[in-house]
Amino acid sequence: MKFELKGKDKLSKARAGEITNDHGKILTPIFMPVGTAGSVKAIHQREVRKDIEAQIILGNTYHLYLRPGLEVLKNAGGLHKFMGWERPILTDSGGYQVYSLAANRKIKEEGVAIKSHIDGSSHFFSPENVMDIQRVIGADIIMAFDECTPYPCDYSYAKKSMEMTHRWLERCCKRVDETSPLYGHHQSLFPIVQGSTYKDLRRISAEKIASFEREGNAIGGLSVGEPAELMYEMAGEVCEILPADKPRYLMGVGTPENILECIALGIDMFDCVMPTRNGRNGMLFTQNGIINIKNEKWKQDYSVIDENSDCFVDKDYSKAYLRHLMVGKEILGMQIASIHNLHFYLWLVTEARKQILEGTFYEWKNKMVKQVSRRL
Amino acid sequence: MKFELKGKDKLSKARAGEITNDHGKILTPIFMPVGTAGSVKAIHQREVRKDIEAQIILGNTYHLYLRPGLEVLKNAGGLHKFMGWERPILTDSGGYQVYSLAANRKIKEEGVAIKSHIDGSSHFFSPENVMDIQRVIGADIIMAFDECTPYPCDYSYAKKSMEMTHRWLERCCKRVDETSPLYGHHQSLFPIVQGSTYKDLRRISAEKIASFEREGNAIGGLSVGEPAELMYEMAGEVCEILPADKPRYLMGVGTPENILECIALGIDMFDCVMPTRNGRNGMLFTQNGIINIKNEKWKQDYSVIDENSDCFVDKDYSKAYLRHLMVGKEILGMQIASIHNLHFYLWLVTEARKQILEGTFYEWKNKMVKQVSRRL
Repeated sequence: MKFELKGKDKLSKARAGEITNDHGKILTPIFMPVGTAGSVKAIHQREVRKDIEAQIILGNTYHLYLRPGLEVLKNAGGLHKFMGWERPILTDSGGYQVYSLAANRKIKEEGVAIKSHIDGSSHFFSPENVMDIQRVIGADIIMAFDECTPYPCDYSYAKKSMEMTHRWLERCCKRVDETSPLYGHHQSLFPIVQGSTYKDLRRISAEKIASFEREGNAIGGLSVGEPAELMYEMAGEVCEILPADKPRYLMGVGTPENILECIALGIDMFDCVMPTRNGRNGMLFTQNGIINIKNEKWKQDYSVIDENSDCFVDKDYSKAYLRHLMVGKEILGMQIASIHNLHFYLWLVTEARKQILEGTFYEWKNKMVKQVSRRL
Repeated sequence: MKFELKGKDKLSKARAGEITNDHGKILTPIFMPVGTAGSVKAIHQREVRKDIEAQIILGNTYHLYLRPGLEVLKNAGGLHKFMGWERPILTDSGGYQVYSLAANRKIKEEGVAIKSHIDGSSHFFSPENVMDIQRVIGADIIMAFDECTPYPCDYSYAKKSMEMTHRWLERCCKRVDETSPLYGHHQSLFPIVQGSTYKDLRRISAEKIASFEREGNAIGGLSVGEPAELMYEMAGEVCEILPADKPRYLMGVGTPENILECIALGIDMFDCVMPTRNGRNGMLFTQNGIINIKNEKWKQDYSVIDENSDCFVDKDYSKAYLRHLMVGKEILGMQIASIHNLHFYLWLVTEARKQILEGTFYEWKNKMVKQVSRRL
């Protein structure tokens, strides 16, 4: 994997870069649509590729391990072939599911015992077997196994957890370095900074994580319920420490506003279920603000969904039609909203990159942050 | 509306025709995908057009009347504009919903009082207001308001009901003839033959219906649970009487096998929810038989969904992947199966037409009937 910096903003820490790996190029800053179980929900692969123009998508190790399971994935030749996606893929490590399925798991130094959300069956995840699982899935970028702490989290727990995440990282690196990819393409391991909302812990973690000198670095444990200002403070602190010549990935973030602010702090990669999950529920993100398409006010608005977009869903369908589909729980409504939102998110990061390269990012960002967070 | 016969099979009653109306041409025999509430479920309009190559789709008057409602449809300029579909549309009259929502309605000579399946609100449908509603929806082909009898149905009820359907037809014709289309394109009213599974009633009804000399004729009250042989017998009997120079539409039919057999009896138009509804549940129709994609046997079948098809879903995805999506209840699975099945249904009627024109229909039909009804 190669990462080249192509430009920097003068008034913020924003950067434009280019990642190259065996499945293609990724222009940063980038947003990665979430394809939890090997499908970006409600969207055909050709639409993810041609209409949304996603450059990389994300898969969830925990979900893929449970279903379709490793045997199916291995015999398919990995996730790329299984789902028919030839561009880069990143997989998380399951650390976030350990956090979000808190009621069903037990964390120990050795690893995590967890009960399946599907059938209650018992499974054990360790830094080692999570690396092995990600070898089988075969993503281009794989994530270290970490503990994602909740918000709020008391200092002593945050510190102990972070230290365990660091020990787990050593085990992850060891396992990855003593094994090989299964499908002939390189896999890059990204470690994850933790430390909850404590600046000193975040600094310690960032320094520790950077010392492993992997091909990229990630920030976890944010966007778990803390105020946005606190998230920005932590992300900013960590970006100061993480090496500038490697991509920085802020996990699970966020709203269009969050993404713009974090680009300004020096983040290069983002993922979030918001555009698809909230889309399926009728929330549309646009340049001019947020639309709840189920509202009565759109009932007879026959204008196209987004007059600023050239995406087919934004030109083919009206707001009134989409509202009708959403109110009637028609599947097509979820399809349209998901494509619209992801197309917008990809437009947003692509435009941010252009503004960075043109030296106009900071002003543009400040204007856009106001626009995108309005309620229409 | 114009209907031209382009060819006839010598060994059966099958015909190849061409309907021309203000929204385009329809080559018959044709299958019409069902778009109940203004959406062919789980499929984008551009896919219905370009990938499935549907020439006409069906909308349900009852559903569209309830949601989005007439005000929204009227101000949109009709259903074509509302949903962004520029090819022909046919709407049913709600007669079938009167049948299928039997618990919630009361039938009188004047019309039918019915409770909404959405919110329990009360509505009254009469031959007159159903014509008015279909004027507002604006389909190219509109259906007479009829009573669809259940199976089995005793003779005296079937006879009385049929006679009322005939009286209702007079009222439908009167209303249509004294009103005008709202959006500048012509609307053709098709009357519906009833008479349950009684040959003499079917003959009486077909003669009565034909005497109205409308632009096309339909056969209703079949495919409601009777054995296929009985359906073929009734359809065959009616086709002998309905005029040959007008299209014949068999409502709500059916399996690929049913369609082939009924083409052989002289039917020109079909609609059915089966390809989409059963598709959403994992049943795939192919040239070689029926696949239940949820079965364990497809778990590691990495071959494409249908090697005989050039539709994108059949080439882009494997059986193992589609099975994974279906087992996990991923929306994309429903999208893929729906497109596959409708593409196959359209292929089937297109191929039938070709075989009719080439004089090879009968043998081909007998071979295909065996193939398509196998379980794979």
